[in-house]
Amino acid sequence: MKIDGIDKIIIKTLTKDARTPVLSIAREVGISGAAIHQRLKKLEKSKLIEGYKMILNPKSLGYTTTAFVGIFINATSETSVIVKKIKNIPEVVESHFTTGNYPIFIKILCKSNDHLLDILQNNIQTIKGISRTETLISLNQQIKRQISI
Amino acid sequence: MKIDGIDKIIIKTLTKDARTPVLSIAREVGISGAAIHQRLKKLEKSKLIEGYKMILNPKSLGYTTTAFVGIFINATSETSVIVKKIKNIPEVVESHFTTGNYPIFIKILCKSNDHLLDILQNNIQTIKGISRTETLISLNQQIKRQISI
Amino acid sequence: MKIDGIDKIIIKTLTKDARTPVLSIAREVGISGAAIHQRLKKLEKSKLIEGYKMILNPKSLGYTTTAFVGIFINATSETSVIVKKIKNIPEVVESHFTTGNYPIFIKILCKSNDHLLDILQNNIQTIKGISRTETLISLNQQIKRQISI
Amino acid sequence: MKIDGIDKIIIKTLTKDARTPVLSIAREVGISGAAIHQRLKKLEKSKLIEGYKMILNPKSLGYTTTAFVGIFINATSETSVIVKKIKNIPEVVESHFTTGNYPIFIKILCKSNDHLLDILQNNIQTIKGISRTETLISLNQQIKRQISI
Amino acid sequence: MKIDGIDKIIIKTLTKDARTPVLSIAREVGISGAAIHQRLKKLEKSKLIEGYKMILNPKSLGYTTTAFVGIFINATSETSVIVKKIKNIPEVVESHFTTGNYPIFIKILCKSNDHLLDILQNNIQTIKGISRTETLISLNQQIKRQISI
Amino acid sequence: MKIDGIDKIIIKTLTKDARTPVLSIAREVGISGAAIHQRLKKLEKSKLIEGYKMILNPKSLGYTTTAFVGIFINATSETSVIVKKIKNIPEVVESHFTTGNYPIFIKILCKSNDHLLDILQNNIQTIKGISRTETLISLNQQIKRQISI
Amino acid sequence: MKIDGIDKIIIKTLTKDARTPVLSIAREVGISGAAIHQRLKKLEKSKLIEGYKMILNPKSLGYTTTAFVGIFINATSETSVIVKKIKNIPEVVESHFTTGNYPIFIKILCKSNDHLLDILQNNIQTIKGISRTETLISLNQQIKRQISI
Amino acid sequence: MKIDGIDKIIIKTLTKDARTPVLSIAREVGISGAAIHQRLKKLEKSKLIEGYKMILNPKSLGYTTTAFVGIFINATSETSVIVKKIKNIPEVVESHFTTGNYPIFIKILCKSNDHLLDILQNNIQTIKGISRTETLISLNQQIKRQISI
Repeated sequence: MKIDGIDKIIIKTLTKDARTPVLSIAREVGISGAAIHQRLKKLEKSKLIEGYKMILNPKSLGYTTTAFVGIFINATSETSVIVKKIKNIPEVVESHFTTGNYPIFIKILCKSNDHLLDILQNNIQTIKGISRTETLISLNQQIKRQISI
Repeated sequence: MKIDGIDKIIIKTLTKDARTPVLSIAREVGISGAAIHQRLKKLEKSKLIEGYKMILNPKSLGYTTTAFVGIFINATSETSVIVKKIKNIPEVVESHFTTGNYPIFIKILCKSNDHLLDILQNNIQTIKGISRTETLISLNQQIKRQISI
Repeated sequence: MKIDGIDKIIIKTLTKDARTPVLSIAREVGISGAAIHQRLKKLEKSKLIEGYKMILNPKSLGYTTTAFVGIFINATSETSVIVKKIKNIPEVVESHFTTGNYPIFIKILCKSNDHLLDILQNNIQTIKGISRTETLISLNQQIKRQISI
Repeated sequence: MKIDGIDKIIIKTLTKDARTPVLSIAREVGISGAAIHQRLKKLEKSKLIEGYKMILNPKSLGYTTTAFVGIFINATSETSVIVKKIKNIPEVVESHFTTGNYPIFIKILCKSNDHLLDILQNNIQTIKGISRTETLISLNQQIKRQISI
Repeated sequence: MKIDGIDKIIIKTLTKDARTPVLSIAREVGISGAAIHQRLKKLEKSKLIEGYKMILNPKSLGYTTTAFVGIFINATSETSVIVKKIKNIPEVVESHFTTGNYPIFIKILCKSNDHLLDILQNNIQTIKGISRTETLISLNQQIKRQISI
Repeated sequence: MKIDGIDKIIIKTLTKDARTPVLSIAREVGISGAAIHQRLKKLEKSKLIEGYKMILNPKSLGYTTTAFVGIFINATSETSVIVKKIKNIPEVVESHFTTGNYPIFIKILCKSNDHLLDILQNNIQTIKGISRTETLISLNQQIKRQISI
Repeated sequence: MKIDGIDKIIIKTLTKDARTPVLSIAREVGISGAAIHQRLKKLEKSKLIEGYKMILNPKSLGYTTTAFVGIFINATSETSVIVKKIKNIPEVVESHFTTGNYPIFIKILCKSNDHLLDILQNNIQTIKGISRTETLISLNQQIKRQISI
Repeated sequence: MKIDGIDKIIIKTLTKDARTPVLSIAREVGISGAAIHQRLKKLEKSKLIEGYKMILNPKSLGYTTTAFVGIFINATSETSVIVKKIKNIPEVVESHFTTGNYPIFIKILCKSNDHLLDILQNNIQTIKGISRTETLISLNQQIKRQISI
């Protein structure tokens, strides 16, 4: 799908603030709201736009500790079954199959180091098929953004 | 800040679709749109809501390769100066100071393995103060979500 | 709990020598012994003071070898059960759950390298659920102190 | 130096509570306070007793994060000079020269993960001669004790 | 077996282009085609020449991803049985028994990172006796040649 | 480019023995030699065929030791310059830029362990910009083949 | 046991050449052969002298490859039983219990890389209780000597 | 060189006790002492026999600590120069160039852990060109022997 300059303005505006009214974008661009609306529907139909999300501040919710956890699994275990169980842990926000040492690599948000330990020992290491974990704590995050067009 | 059941409905609705009109939420909850609007302003003033974002699909933009890169730095280098330069690389979407082996750990989106190599060799390893990198490629991502309330 | 300058003198004095008589502190500060006594009771009631301990010299007792041991455990083992058994080994003076490679990380004092080997092979590696250990010997300790106020 | 059963009672009593009055020990053992006093002086003269310390509770002082840090140093640096500078960081409570990967291995108490990052970046990694650090966070400590006689 | 200057010309010519006609080599060297033919037969009988192969371009066939995979195996498994099963995976182009960490080290060609993941999870990690793999992706190959005489 | 069943027979035949005469293939397929010749020219023009090579037996040439070498480089060095120098070492048969620990990963054929040491110390480690190497010796190779169509 | 200057001459002489006749040492020192003999008997009775050995040249016997092998063992295995089985492999010339990663670390002499592979796969990895090995090949030995007095 | 059964008896006898008189061997074998002497000279001329050595007991000399040290070196350093300096440290009894992580791997005998630290910090790490060391302590040695014929 080809996107032109007007599409780009629409995308950039909504990437910054997803609740910007169509008419406000229309005024900025200088075409009718209906035209903006039509273009937006087309962009949504293409797989370019995944959705519109209110972004919550994890720190305000008390989630001050970010950790990356490398997960080793037993030889005979099916990774898909294990990932299904990992999905049930709400603190896990990303899960990847990776090259290197770890078959599974996850990102996890916790309210404290104690909370992290609790999840590791009682939610993750108890999953059948997981043999060992290695944890990396993020002491500070400097960049957090989307890929821009 | 305390949030009640109505706040939760507002948050859950907008977390799913940030463009849901206030009146539509009002109808669902059964109170006036003005009341929803007021609550929303209050939630926005608290640091609970970081913003509203259109979420782009990186794969549709051609970004099919996700990698994590551990960055080793020279003894005498200032990490803050290095991170400032890393910020200029648009493909880097996360940067962390971490425990474990790496002082800096970043997440990067690329269009191909070739593109990844190009960024590693020409954009990252050329930053003064970076001594060595270790790269982990995500072959598949199964979980990608926010912390929920 | 708030502590003032007089509290600090009391704490610093007893941190240096826990057997300093109350009257001696009273003289130094210039208030009555009863007042010092009362403050001390209050500090003890707060969780600030863990206790008063005679500190033995491990080297005089023949404990010349300090080692740190990273302990790997089997997937299905409960760490709490394992730690309970580790507690029965009197040479183990610290035990931690840690990030990084090791689920359990202990500090151990031994009378010799032979003694260390004996404990590793006959007391630690025989605990059900422990799969492997990695040992780090301290060849010399330069700093050994408490956090000061 | 030989220690008999009465010495052991004295030591065990004061190891538990260093402020136990001599007369109280005397009553328990069944000999005069003067005899206890004399034995205590003898034990102190021998190097068996390092001192008497009020033990503060690090968590009450806000030190909730314990970390172990392996320190790599530059080839031409003198470890003794580096350790002297590490001694100036009050949060460092132990320092060892160790076998294995790290020439220097320290234990550090911090008030938060942020505090730990601050010490690592601004106090430790700025010491001339230190090339790299690897950090291990203790998520929980189960054993904390002295070697007993 | 001794090879003289004429043999070397024959070998160098056919190493470059295995389809060079005997007569063309003969003209270059200045002896009869029959003589070249005879020498070639002798070289083939010695084990010096393994064969003549049309070299396909993996990238043209869609094989754009090269990976090296270190394979850990269970204690009681026979490596020869495991290798026999690995041979059934057509994407594996090399297999070695190696010193260092890995008992088995293979080279694998894939059509994409997704394809690589599929082979790792469904073809390799399902082989009985394989406990764990570590993958290294080649982002670019600069040298690809034979040993020359 | 699309290849049909006859193309496949041509490719399979020449992959096995690159010196098979066109007429022999023609007889097998049942079409004229000229047709085979024409198809071959077309396949060669496409990038599918890299060439025809006489494959030498490294062991017969005395190259009994295969090693993989991971190469670490200095921060400020250009990998392309280093690879250019590595290309001058005839024993190096492959060179890759890789994910994981090593920026450069090479395959090398040697006549003995002594020969390997000589190349490592006198040809590789002397290249400006190379800081360290890690070597993996192949004790035995079980699979050595091309990707098949 | 105290050793004087004459003892030292005796030891140094026999450390160089264990077959030096007593009378030859006597002449050098300037005392009677009987006195040398008596001193030698005394030194032998003390545990200072382990014996007199003809030293064979491993390379002349065809043992050109020296390797160090780190051996990982299963949790429930007894190291003493495993070492007993390792003792039956004549190529193993040293075995140690070590700190660091490996519980058992051995030195092994082989006639070739093939021979090393054979011992690793057929003699060592088949011992019950051994889970994994890591091999380090010595490409060249520069120092081989005893501790001198 | 071919060795027959009688040669083997001579070698086995002297490998056990290098001071066994020729006549004693002669009696055991049943041939003249002169014949034994002649054979011995021939064996010595061949490179099979490296010499005859009195073997000292390192523990009796106070050398109770055996350590293996992996030595990393700077890129621009010559290993031969570094090894020459290592040779001046009498406690180093073996030195190897090895595959794997370490360019140089040594064996060292020390009188205590303190002594080991002293050698590492003051004799080894001060050698120009050495960047870092990793130490492995042998807690116990079970096998110590020569290759037998």
